[in-house]
Amino acid sequence: MRTGDAYGEMMLASLESNGEGIEIVERDSGLIMASRFGPEYYFAPYRKWPSRQRRALRLARGRVLDVGAGAGRVALHFQEKGHDAVAIDVSPGTTEVCRRRGVRDARVMRIEDVDESLGIFDTVIMFGNNLGLLASRTKAPRILKRLDRLTTGRARILGECSDPYSTEDPIHLAYHDRNRKRGRMGGQLRIRIRHRETASPWFDYLFLSRPELEELLEGTGWKLTRMIEDDTPVYVAVIERESRAPASRTG
Amino acid sequence: MRTGDAYGEMMLASLESNGEGIEIVERDSGLIMASRFGPEYYFAPYRKWPSRQRRALRLARGRVLDVGAGAGRVALHFQEKGHDAVAIDVSPGTTEVCRRRGVRDARVMRIEDVDESLGIFDTVIMFGNNLGLLASRTKAPRILKRLDRLTTGRARILGECSDPYSTEDPIHLAYHDRNRKRGRMGGQLRIRIRHRETASPWFDYLFLSRPELEELLEGTGWKLTRMIEDDTPVYVAVIERESRAPASRTG
Repeated sequence: MRTGDAYGEMMLASLESNGEGIEIVERDSGLIMASRFGPEYYFAPYRKWPSRQRRALRLARGRVLDVGAGAGRVALHFQEKGHDAVAIDVSPGTTEVCRRRGVRDARVMRIEDVDESLGIFDTVIMFGNNLGLLASRTKAPRILKRLDRLTTGRARILGECSDPYSTEDPIHLAYHDRNRKRGRMGGQLRIRIRHRETASPWFDYLFLSRPELEELLEGTGWKLTRMIEDDTPVYVAVIERESRAPASRTG
Repeated sequence: MRTGDAYGEMMLASLESNGEGIEIVERDSGLIMASRFGPEYYFAPYRKWPSRQRRALRLARGRVLDVGAGAGRVALHFQEKGHDAVAIDVSPGTTEVCRRRGVRDARVMRIEDVDESLGIFDTVIMFGNNLGLLASRTKAPRILKRLDRLTTGRARILGECSDPYSTEDPIHLAYHDRNRKRGRMGGQLRIRIRHRETASPWFDYLFLSRPELEELLEGTGWKLTRMIEDDTPVYVAVIERESRAPASRTG
């Protein structure tokens, strides 16, 4: 097994087989999960997106940053509607998939590294549980500060996330305990993607309950203004500035 | 991660969710494979079995031993047709699945351990690539000798297997090389099943080309009499005694 761009290799293979493939995620507790809805989900046409996502997109406007863009479905959607959209993803392979599918501005970039070189945005979209890229209590405020610098005063973050505590599965409950004992948040998953003989590096992926999200946003200048939910533990958090549209940022 | 009956846990979970589930197999090279057709396959009704299997079953007769019985589909098939059938599987969980589905004689037993306590058989069935349970050049003759002792003179082994060399995938070709360098057969896979936080013990699973199978049978008293093939690399080998029906064995 080698460490590499497992996610990108999976996505490139899926692109070449019309969305076939199964995504395998491993957690540091040894849990292995395979999802029938991996690549199928990443390549899904708009009408098949979860309703919470389609409802959330009504709140999107202006210039769009698509964070953890995967196969670029969100960036492509906005491009087609005439918006300027930039797709970023940590995976070179999946960024290549974005480009091949027609995303005009797709870049290999971690969310921790976003800066003004990308331009200024009105909307930041983190779908597919990618609000989890906030990663941890330490990283989240740093990332939110960066997003503050490169968004307009009326900016909205539409961040999808899962409530980790809406489960009675003893394996997950034990994992939350184990995390807390190590000083981590309960839903602070440490995971990696595996594809064939490649494993991605381990990374933190933060699942948050609503109260945890609200607490995490405190003092960052951002606040939770709405939760868009359906009948699943997954929700889209609408996050806006605490004090909207200061003169210095509306430019 | 704990070592345990990962396969049985997967099968029990599938039984409780109407055949849902994805089988995850890990190879000692770090390769990870997820199959959409795991549990779906194990619980499939007769009409959905691969045609090579249905054709092979026309050669079955008498008392049947179902080796690596999984969810017991083969044993149940023969039971319904009025044959006496015994299902064995190394997994306690999957043996429990057999029983819950109505297999009258299902036992937790490794193929290496079969003996006369099971009675005498006319047909030994090893479907789902389970001819691979012959495991290695060393184990195969021992297992075939055991099967010799507990079968009638006109006995047939119907053993499904895959030709490992019908691939151009560099990952598999490198694996065959690696195996040979270690004194193993090219297609002598070392694998384990993973399910949630459980991994099965590692085990050898032998994929054989036709010439390799013929060579492996030499001197065992068994010979390959027919290959039942379709348009895949998977085949059913029909294996019979070299000298048929000695008086002492016709019982």
